[in-house]
Amino acid sequence: MGLTIGVDIGGTKIAAGVVDEAGAIIETHTVATPSTPGGIVDAICSAVAGAGEGHRIEAVGIGAAGYVDDKRATVLFAPNIDWRHEPLKDKVEQRVGLPVVVENDANAAAWGEFRFGAGQGHEDVIVITLGTGLGGGIIIGNKLRRGRFGVAAEFGHIRVVPDGLLCGCGSQGCWEQYASGRALVRYARQRAAAAPEAAAVLLGLGDGTPEGIEGRHVSEAARQGDPVAVDSFRELARWAGAGLADLASLFDPSAFIIGGGVSDEGELVLEPIRKSFRRWLIGAQWRPHAQVVAARLGNRAGLVGAADLARQG
Amino acid sequence: MGLTIGVDIGGTKIAAGVVDEAGAIIETHTVATPSTPGGIVDAICSAVAGAGEGHRIEAVGIGAAGYVDDKRATVLFAPNIDWRHEPLKDKVEQRVGLPVVVENDANAAAWGEFRFGAGQGHEDVIVITLGTGLGGGIIIGNKLRRGRFGVAAEFGHIRVVPDGLLCGCGSQGCWEQYASGRALVRYARQRAAAAPEAAAVLLGLGDGTPEGIEGRHVSEAARQGDPVAVDSFRELARWAGAGLADLASLFDPSAFIIGGGVSDEGELVLEPIRKSFRRWLIGAQWRPHAQVVAARLGNRAGLVGAADLARQG
Amino acid sequence: MGLTIGVDIGGTKIAAGVVDEAGAIIETHTVATPSTPGGIVDAICSAVAGAGEGHRIEAVGIGAAGYVDDKRATVLFAPNIDWRHEPLKDKVEQRVGLPVVVENDANAAAWGEFRFGAGQGHEDVIVITLGTGLGGGIIIGNKLRRGRFGVAAEFGHIRVVPDGLLCGCGSQGCWEQYASGRALVRYARQRAAAAPEAAAVLLGLGDGTPEGIEGRHVSEAARQGDPVAVDSFRELARWAGAGLADLASLFDPSAFIIGGGVSDEGELVLEPIRKSFRRWLIGAQWRPHAQVVAARLGNRAGLVGAADLARQG
Amino acid sequence: MGLTIGVDIGGTKIAAGVVDEAGAIIETHTVATPSTPGGIVDAICSAVAGAGEGHRIEAVGIGAAGYVDDKRATVLFAPNIDWRHEPLKDKVEQRVGLPVVVENDANAAAWGEFRFGAGQGHEDVIVITLGTGLGGGIIIGNKLRRGRFGVAAEFGHIRVVPDGLLCGCGSQGCWEQYASGRALVRYARQRAAAAPEAAAVLLGLGDGTPEGIEGRHVSEAARQGDPVAVDSFRELARWAGAGLADLASLFDPSAFIIGGGVSDEGELVLEPIRKSFRRWLIGAQWRPHAQVVAARLGNRAGLVGAADLARQG
Repeated sequence: MGLTIGVDIGGTKIAAGVVDEAGAIIETHTVATPSTPGGIVDAICSAVAGAGEGHRIEAVGIGAAGYVDDKRATVLFAPNIDWRHEPLKDKVEQRVGLPVVVENDANAAAWGEFRFGAGQGHEDVIVITLGTGLGGGIIIGNKLRRGRFGVAAEFGHIRVVPDGLLCGCGSQGCWEQYASGRALVRYARQRAAAAPEAAAVLLGLGDGTPEGIEGRHVSEAARQGDPVAVDSFRELARWAGAGLADLASLFDPSAFIIGGGVSDEGELVLEPIRKSFRRWLIGAQWRPHAQVVAARLGNRAGLVGAADLARQG
Repeated sequence: MGLTIGVDIGGTKIAAGVVDEAGAIIETHTVATPSTPGGIVDAICSAVAGAGEGHRIEAVGIGAAGYVDDKRATVLFAPNIDWRHEPLKDKVEQRVGLPVVVENDANAAAWGEFRFGAGQGHEDVIVITLGTGLGGGIIIGNKLRRGRFGVAAEFGHIRVVPDGLLCGCGSQGCWEQYASGRALVRYARQRAAAAPEAAAVLLGLGDGTPEGIEGRHVSEAARQGDPVAVDSFRELARWAGAGLADLASLFDPSAFIIGGGVSDEGELVLEPIRKSFRRWLIGAQWRPHAQVVAARLGNRAGLVGAADLARQG
Repeated sequence: MGLTIGVDIGGTKIAAGVVDEAGAIIETHTVATPSTPGGIVDAICSAVAGAGEGHRIEAVGIGAAGYVDDKRATVLFAPNIDWRHEPLKDKVEQRVGLPVVVENDANAAAWGEFRFGAGQGHEDVIVITLGTGLGGGIIIGNKLRRGRFGVAAEFGHIRVVPDGLLCGCGSQGCWEQYASGRALVRYARQRAAAAPEAAAVLLGLGDGTPEGIEGRHVSEAARQGDPVAVDSFRELARWAGAGLADLASLFDPSAFIIGGGVSDEGELVLEPIRKSFRRWLIGAQWRPHAQVVAARLGNRAGLVGAADLARQG
Repeated sequence: MGLTIGVDIGGTKIAAGVVDEAGAIIETHTVATPSTPGGIVDAICSAVAGAGEGHRIEAVGIGAAGYVDDKRATVLFAPNIDWRHEPLKDKVEQRVGLPVVVENDANAAAWGEFRFGAGQGHEDVIVITLGTGLGGGIIIGNKLRRGRFGVAAEFGHIRVVPDGLLCGCGSQGCWEQYASGRALVRYARQRAAAAPEAAAVLLGLGDGTPEGIEGRHVSEAARQGDPVAVDSFRELARWAGAGLADLASLFDPSAFIIGGGVSDEGELVLEPIRKSFRRWLIGAQWRPHAQVVAARLGNRAGLVGAADLARQG
């Protein structure tokens, strides 16, 4: 009783998981991600059917990258899939015969962390996901805040540098160009190109060229103390922390939860983020400070969060 | 019946107004603003007594510049008055014998606009006050959002230029250094110094020097079409609109309400703000756009909003 | 007598011209640009032979995009051709039997303008070429200043925005990302995407989409008064003029000569550049101001300048 | 034989020194700096007379802060003294009966370093003086380059941050706001305010408050390894080095000589400057790199340089 299914649409696979009321994943079913928009709908339904077999499922929650409308029914725009005003809720409901809730994937992950992860015990939290890009979700007063039209919490695209780096969104100077896994790699490559001798460890982990540096090399090299890798994490942390200070001015949450692949490095990246956060926090001596803590659910957050949102209807 | 009092603490005078359930001000009592922190408490009580005489008052709401705690009782820090952890609610309640609610003045004004001004009919609005500085308030789901510790909605101090202008808050590059009445005057002075011949009208309204230019001169000159004054408003609007686009990415409200002295110029400043907002809005073609509208209550918003918040307890 | 040959290496053709002491081009010979580095050397020699036939030539000057060493002999690095430490002078001298001088193409064009164009009568001028990118040359005390190692005057790559746009050079925030033909097109596309209705003329000149906008469309639309095109030129001019103000602080020349395709628009672009220059010029009231004037030789400047530098040896 | 006098006008004293052809100071005479413009002229003459007594002096060179015209005769504008179009050369020549050359003080110091200090053996050097502000001088082809109107080499006022910090010159984002002794103190104060516990050593050297931190405290604390002080020097070095990279793109000198009080810290500041310089140097792998070295003459550079310029006439 009380089981729902959460769906996570990834670039290579689509995972559906049966989740109980405590946020535990009972069973998972995974299918490869098709290349066509219609194929993806089929695959979602197939994954849901596979996972739900033998369980009594009450509802389905789907986390999708992109803009989801205020009714949590239609994907207005998905950057990676060719979905434009896609009535995903209706299509899947007809096929699986269960109530469906569609949610932005970063919102779903934020909700997962709030309910079952690092956000427990808080009422007002901001979750920031430092993955390839930068996303997140807003919980105020124990509720996920989606905005009037469903497209709030697009943290990655606030402008932190006027006339700054071009972003895939068409704008310039977006936060995710400076605080994300992609930014981390850029920092490392630029620094390694300027000072190859100092980046010996880092370069050695890849093919020896700055262009060959990948995110996992920067993480590994930083763990080994490579100065260029450490400095690259610091640069990312500088931007991340300064942005959190802005969000504290706006939202004044009791906690910031940092998730995503970059946060896998734990204190290596969290501590410099905290330092930068304190450096830029306005009125720091006159206010209680939000905690800056690591997410706990890893990449399960989105699936678990989507399932829980479906439960709540 | 159903009357409450709102108090507005200004630099030169303290106004208390009796406000009915429809947001109408029935009666106002004003006293000069004393120079000592204790004197101000006295003056608030005196203004409340004066206004309330002959009315049956249920509660008092006080709008104060500064950080107000999560209980809406204590002023943690007031930039202009020497209040630090000042238990204003308790002090005034003891003296006036009525329930008191303390609120940040920009929050109070935002609430006033939401309830009785340009925000009516909306559930999610951001109010931005372009006065000498830049302040505002957040309404989400018909509720004022104050943050976990009471200090949310400090819009003026998000960083829009890394390594930018020094701000009175101790930080650099704060939005209010680029979008506020003070910024407007700086733009006009810089431009008039660089091109005095083009700023003839503007300079003629003051004492003839760039330093002699005041905000009212820029407004008057802009109305007369002075190119330097018009360009100064455009510069302010560029920064204001770009900031609204960031807030749309975060909050996705249905409306932005622009108040404060700068907004008195109406479409002269609103239209370029809208233009800049659209220019920088992310995903503009895939989402409904928030309206950008003028506030309606003028400088009554704070008093009316504080009174209404007191009613709601 | 007194004839030299100047060579201009373009992306599609290589032009050699016989130039007299007054800077007049007597005869030109053009060959298509081969795709291999070695082929280009052959083509240069062939063009020189073709142009020189029947003339008594004293020397050859070659303008090449890239870093040319302090001896004006070796191309250290050419961004568009695969030349790395290419001993161009020696190779061509051996083949054509004449003294050869190699010079950076923007330096050569600057020298051409100084000797026979808008720089006549000046002793200290900075030439800025606003083409696809931004280049230029420095004349101080009637001499071309190449730096100690030959690579001075790389104007396009001074950093005008920290953490700004990525540049082909590997750095960020380079001036040419904000003031160049490529920047102009970016400005126009961004503005047309944000406000398609205001860009009707501009969009109509291309294929109707922002991405279809080319530089010539922006120029044509600006001439027709299209507000988005005019605004794009203004944005370019803002950055160009602010950069000139920096160069005035450093070099204090008597004139800035603006060449390149963007400058073909004449006062449409020069006047806003001057306005921005005055706006940002430091100590403007205490110093004589450099003139900001259009180049006169068009795309002949490089060839004529290279020929003249060859004459001077 | 071959003796000239150099004059250094400081905020508290005016020093005149007799200098021989090898740059050695034979004798010095110092007077207190008067508070009136006219008094300063008197004091200069008095100092010259005092120093020159008993020597056969050929000429006098005066280094003055401010704009000096192309004839090296008139101070167009002095920021600290109320001189506007002050004919200093004529006034002093009439009084002391010797040929007088007036030069910008930073230019004079640059020349001193070039002739007798760290610039010996070079033909093309840029001298950067990191004092309270940021100044410097340009030597190209063994000659001091003053610009067409005498006001070149105002390095401190190139714009490195658009919309950046206000500068005393009236502009914004000037380099000296980010790379100078004053900037160093600002960095230290901001960091100490944000992280007082980390700045214990630094705060202990002053009065315990961020505002009480002076430049000498930052230097002393950095020598003791205080992390906040070290980080403040690094921030300064980041900006200094990035600016040098820009100057390398423009001037391509064989050496940058770093003088001024900040450079007294030697490798503590020079090494991070070099690191930042390499980080931002364009085309680093294809060009010889300029050296970045410490000045050698300390605060004698200006006096010695002025004397030598006077010798050269």
